[in-house]
Amino acid sequence: MIWYKEQNDNDIIVSTRVRLARNLDKYPFPNRLSEEGCQKVLDEVKNAVLNSGSTLANSFTFKAMKELTPDEKQALSEKHLISIEMAKGDRGGALISEDENMSIMMLEEDHLRLQIILGGFRLKEAWELADKVDNVIEESVNYAFSEEFGYLTACPTNTGTGMRASVMMHLPALTMTNNMNKIISSASTLGLTVRGLYGEGSKAYGNLYQVSNQVTLGISEEEIIESLENIVGQIEKHEKDAREKLKENEEFADKLWRAYGTLKFARIVSSSEAKALISQVILGKNMGIIDIEEKLPLISLMVETEPATLMNGEKLTPTERDKKRGELLRENV
Amino acid sequence: MIWYKEQNDNDIIVSTRVRLARNLDKYPFPNRLSEEGCQKVLDEVKNAVLNSGSTLANSFTFKAMKELTPDEKQALSEKHLISIEMAKGDRGGALISEDENMSIMMLEEDHLRLQIILGGFRLKEAWELADKVDNVIEESVNYAFSEEFGYLTACPTNTGTGMRASVMMHLPALTMTNNMNKIISSASTLGLTVRGLYGEGSKAYGNLYQVSNQVTLGISEEEIIESLENIVGQIEKHEKDAREKLKENEEFADKLWRAYGTLKFARIVSSSEAKALISQVILGKNMGIIDIEEKLPLISLMVETEPATLMNGEKLTPTERDKKRGELLRENV
Repeated sequence: MIWYKEQNDNDIIVSTRVRLARNLDKYPFPNRLSEEGCQKVLDEVKNAVLNSGSTLANSFTFKAMKELTPDEKQALSEKHLISIEMAKGDRGGALISEDENMSIMMLEEDHLRLQIILGGFRLKEAWELADKVDNVIEESVNYAFSEEFGYLTACPTNTGTGMRASVMMHLPALTMTNNMNKIISSASTLGLTVRGLYGEGSKAYGNLYQVSNQVTLGISEEEIIESLENIVGQIEKHEKDAREKLKENEEFADKLWRAYGTLKFARIVSSSEAKALISQVILGKNMGIIDIEEKLPLISLMVETEPATLMNGEKLTPTERDKKRGELLRENV
Repeated sequence: MIWYKEQNDNDIIVSTRVRLARNLDKYPFPNRLSEEGCQKVLDEVKNAVLNSGSTLANSFTFKAMKELTPDEKQALSEKHLISIEMAKGDRGGALISEDENMSIMMLEEDHLRLQIILGGFRLKEAWELADKVDNVIEESVNYAFSEEFGYLTACPTNTGTGMRASVMMHLPALTMTNNMNKIISSASTLGLTVRGLYGEGSKAYGNLYQVSNQVTLGISEEEIIESLENIVGQIEKHEKDAREKLKENEEFADKLWRAYGTLKFARIVSSSEAKALISQVILGKNMGIIDIEEKLPLISLMVETEPATLMNGEKLTPTERDKKRGELLRENV
């Protein structure tokens, strides 16, 4: 099941993602690849997956970027199935598994980037699944690999394991108490990056952060996962402590209840306001301050109210979207 | 019944007040009166009312300012039964009728000021009632009266009829569309004043305004009432027109719904925020935008959430009051 709909008992860790960057040894990297070369890479990877006969690969469907509307591409990126950069262009395509927890982007920055996203804190499981899909593909293609450096990638920062493991955390209490800068800089000294919801350079809308490894060279996949697990556990503890301190703060409870009132009755709600309000209501529910039975998992409302996911094929103006978003929130909160 | 609890089908006109300023001919005005003189005035007026034998006067109870706590005095002024100035001091007293629609302040600016407050738009009824009470008092005392000027008062602006007739109007649409300054200045050219909730110099909390006559000299009581009725009717029409124009405005509806959400769920609410939110919810309900069944008349919540009325004898800190106010609003909206 797609990450945001999965049952998840962890209040703070929303999802886990493992991404492997791979390139075929026969072709130049995508930025230097001819159109013909692109088609060949696409075909080789597609066939490697779809014709593998593996049950794992059975559920994949291919989507060519040039055949999708801008809204359809944006909806895929809102669900984190393709990158924002890929959604902006017409190049390449993606293989996406039926339950939307596996996707393989082709001809983004690298020939292929395969990723597994699971709900909750499941780094090892995601890595094992990524490794299996990687093995299926490698049965049919030769990866660009150096004994000295490991997997070769278009950008040297990914060379080595080619792996980026990341964990999406909901950190409203650390954010509200202005502790995120401290967290971000201490994670950085440990070789990890803490970024906003949509990765590099994006804002932490809805107080959602991605914690991921910076280093991929001279370190094994297991070491990356271990160090990430360790730091994520520490950040989780800090968030819990921050929540504990806010527990008796009545002005804070008032703020959360007001967010709930707005979410429940507002008629026109922007995407960023929706995320900010949902974040506060999730926090209130997690802390036992707001006692409600919502119809949809609140975290999934953050994705369902994203512009393209919300439109779901309809063509709406921004104002019409803000109204539809308000409606969806009122019906489900 | 006290004005704000009365059944009132007028969406815009909240209450009607007629006040008569009177002085006894035997004594100097209060600002020049000895303590002994004050006691005599108090006794004469009190006896004139309480010993009159009139059924109208039967229901009055006397409250000496010096025997009331500051909170008790403030609560009376929040209900408009005594003036804010009187509530601040220890001088004089007030006769208040059981159903709290009649009150007689003694030794405020004048020897006595008798007022009638009724819910809704009932100027003539209020004036007739005021006239009756005035006659009852005049059976036992001699008023300071000049054939040339009429009733003599401490401040010359009240000399003549000694009457101030005022109508409290709820004008949120004119306020939100920034039309109140125009209304205030055109009322002024017609000899009328438009002021905030608590009269002279006060802000229009909750978008409540008092429209009253400025002139009391050279004009009869009937003429004052007629001209006030006329202007109030015009302002009412302007408010209706402003509401009509806002009817299809979705951002405006959104604003009202958000106010409702906050009122329904906030935990800590100040007195001025409460009035602003209640005003918006009343407007939403009047305009058929917000469809709710509240437990108490919303306008009465404006008074019930005033600091002293809210405390109702309890001693609370401002924060405790803000919490109690939130509770009261949540329970009744």
